[in-house]
Amino acid sequence: MIPVEEARTRILAGIAATPAEVVALAEAWGRVLARPVLSRLTQPPRDVSAMDGYALRAADATLGATLKVVGAAPAGHPWEGTLAPGEALRLFTGSVVPDGADSILLQEDATRSGDAVTVNEAATQGRHIRRAGQDFAAGDTLIAPGKRLNARDIGIAAAGNSPWLTVHRRPRVAILATGDEIALPGDPIPPGGIVSSNSHALAALVRAAGGDPVVLPIAPDDRAALMEAADSLHGMDLLLTSGGASVGDHDLVQEALGARGLIVDFWQIAMRPGKPLMHGRLGDVAMIGLPGNPVSSLVCAILFVVPALQKLSGLPAAAPPTVMARLGAPLAANDKRADHLRATLSTAPDGTLVATAFPRQDSSMLRLMAQADALILRAAHAPAAEAGAMVPVIRLDALGL
Amino acid sequence: MIPVEEARTRILAGIAATPAEVVALAEAWGRVLARPVLSRLTQPPRDVSAMDGYALRAADATLGATLKVVGAAPAGHPWEGTLAPGEALRLFTGSVVPDGADSILLQEDATRSGDAVTVNEAATQGRHIRRAGQDFAAGDTLIAPGKRLNARDIGIAAAGNSPWLTVHRRPRVAILATGDEIALPGDPIPPGGIVSSNSHALAALVRAAGGDPVVLPIAPDDRAALMEAADSLHGMDLLLTSGGASVGDHDLVQEALGARGLIVDFWQIAMRPGKPLMHGRLGDVAMIGLPGNPVSSLVCAILFVVPALQKLSGLPAAAPPTVMARLGAPLAANDKRADHLRATLSTAPDGTLVATAFPRQDSSMLRLMAQADALILRAAHAPAAEAGAMVPVIRLDALGL
Repeated sequence: MIPVEEARTRILAGIAATPAEVVALAEAWGRVLARPVLSRLTQPPRDVSAMDGYALRAADATLGATLKVVGAAPAGHPWEGTLAPGEALRLFTGSVVPDGADSILLQEDATRSGDAVTVNEAATQGRHIRRAGQDFAAGDTLIAPGKRLNARDIGIAAAGNSPWLTVHRRPRVAILATGDEIALPGDPIPPGGIVSSNSHALAALVRAAGGDPVVLPIAPDDRAALMEAADSLHGMDLLLTSGGASVGDHDLVQEALGARGLIVDFWQIAMRPGKPLMHGRLGDVAMIGLPGNPVSSLVCAILFVVPALQKLSGLPAAAPPTVMARLGAPLAANDKRADHLRATLSTAPDGTLVATAFPRQDSSMLRLMAQADALILRAAHAPAAEAGAMVPVIRLDALGL
Repeated sequence: MIPVEEARTRILAGIAATPAEVVALAEAWGRVLARPVLSRLTQPPRDVSAMDGYALRAADATLGATLKVVGAAPAGHPWEGTLAPGEALRLFTGSVVPDGADSILLQEDATRSGDAVTVNEAATQGRHIRRAGQDFAAGDTLIAPGKRLNARDIGIAAAGNSPWLTVHRRPRVAILATGDEIALPGDPIPPGGIVSSNSHALAALVRAAGGDPVVLPIAPDDRAALMEAADSLHGMDLLLTSGGASVGDHDLVQEALGARGLIVDFWQIAMRPGKPLMHGRLGDVAMIGLPGNPVSSLVCAILFVVPALQKLSGLPAAAPPTVMARLGAPLAANDKRADHLRATLSTAPDGTLVATAFPRQDSSMLRLMAQADALILRAAHAPAAEAGAMVPVIRLDALGL
């Protein structure tokens, strides 16, 4: 058996980021940037007012002074003259400060009468002026590559005048469920069979991680069907299989895909739920073979597939992020397999996160996996832990998983 | 000036969840459930084996006993006979346990020879059998309404045999940027003008919250253009405007939309950045008028628009979630306006989250807003706080914002 971390490292070693494509700014939310966004302009482009009021020379604006208002400059309508001594220009937040002016008199500190304005509070040089380039200058890197673009990134790319962004192509992920006993939801269920849940749970997980899932037809336990699936992978970045990864008498996947050139590692991973994992490569398609058990399949997908999708997407690949939580109930000592206990989260009165494992951890109980807020990580050979002890947890709610 | 919480409550009071629509299970990830998902089957449907091995009668399976193997039942191929005393059936994880059997002998505890199997470890009644309905039973509620569906929800809905789910229609959100001084990215920029960043940042924020944005053409400061925009709102659930919400001389939005029936509240909110907010209703379309300043616009959108989108989506609406963090640098006492300081987050060696406000909090600096990991919430009149004090923060990284 190999440790979880070693399995993840070996999977990631065989994966590279997808190539770049150009998308419209409006379509770039959630995509991963492949080339830097450089500003194409300086913001603000010129000195502008930070407030509504009057541009003037600070030297003129002593308490009680009266200045002549020579015009008005709404934002977007700059006044292109030069302000002379004794003059003031009406302006607004964002208006360009005219040449000659060096201060802003706030409108609440001014009394206007016709084309005259009286100073009720002495102005200070440079006050309420935003200098050209205060936010950013042309050529500045606004966003570095390798970041998943959020709403604020879209905003700053727009502000820097980039209508197009260069991002990594979404990873294309083929999903192949295998087994005579499974049927698609709503389809007739064979005697003793079950409805296939892994394909669609995995497809949703691929979407949550920013990939495009392609759900292949279910392959019965039949060599020809599996070989046909192997022949349908053109353009895929990753193949996920579900089922056929255990050491039973009916494991055809490895054999049938082998006939199509699969170079395979078959691993026993020192973890629970989900010990067996296939890993390999079919031509230029990386392959991860997940257990057929739905809970094991999801836990393995969170530990191995999500990091693989991150790396394919152009993100730094890493183990799922953990936070520390206080145990809501004691845990027994662990054996030699790292465990991933399905748990609920709550918040203690002092604000601490509390994680409480479900008393039943049977890996066949998908409902408890669906109800879990988190997985408590238990290292191999972890000693028994009292309620109140701090443990690392993977928050499932935060991952869209 | 009204407090933030009152403004949010008044906005939410005018908003109801969108009606339901039916979507395919494969399209339901990220949608909000409108009707419960009930299981249409019992899982497992019959008693099944939890392991690879042999079904038998526990009474027969004493140490060293040899039983007759009468057949094999791969998962999906149940053996429909009744096991007689002295008989064993080869089966696998998920195989139906035949009538007559009451225990499973693990394959690693068995020695097979032709059609005989020898017991190397005495079996226990009921051991390694998953009972029918152990996971869920037909009619059970698998997912309650009002939940955003994650990958595990898709999995359990599939397992319960639901190919279609009833979800709330995505909220449709019209976004109207106003102002003579703004241009779309890549378009010619008027003299003294700036590139419009709010529309696309808001559109991305709407996507992040599960809505469908509709970006209207920029309306110059011109009554006719604003009235045309008001006439284009058929089928929208929410109108967001950007700009035109301050008390300047050039605020036409309220007047022009008023001519089209806008019933409007105009609020001064006791907050920073972003004091002025319009709120109202244009026929059956709720309206939130955001400040034109990009940072103020984003902060107001996080505080008011995201909860409005949650309520429209069918989720429980609430203030953005906060977590507690330790201050990385001291803060001065606050004035009468609740503040939302742009801050970076880091993790202390002891695992505590540390929030450090940028020294400059000028609301014109979009770049710092884009670089922020969090907003530190400072209540009105909050006293000065030392480094190390605990403060509530809104994590921006967690919201796709």
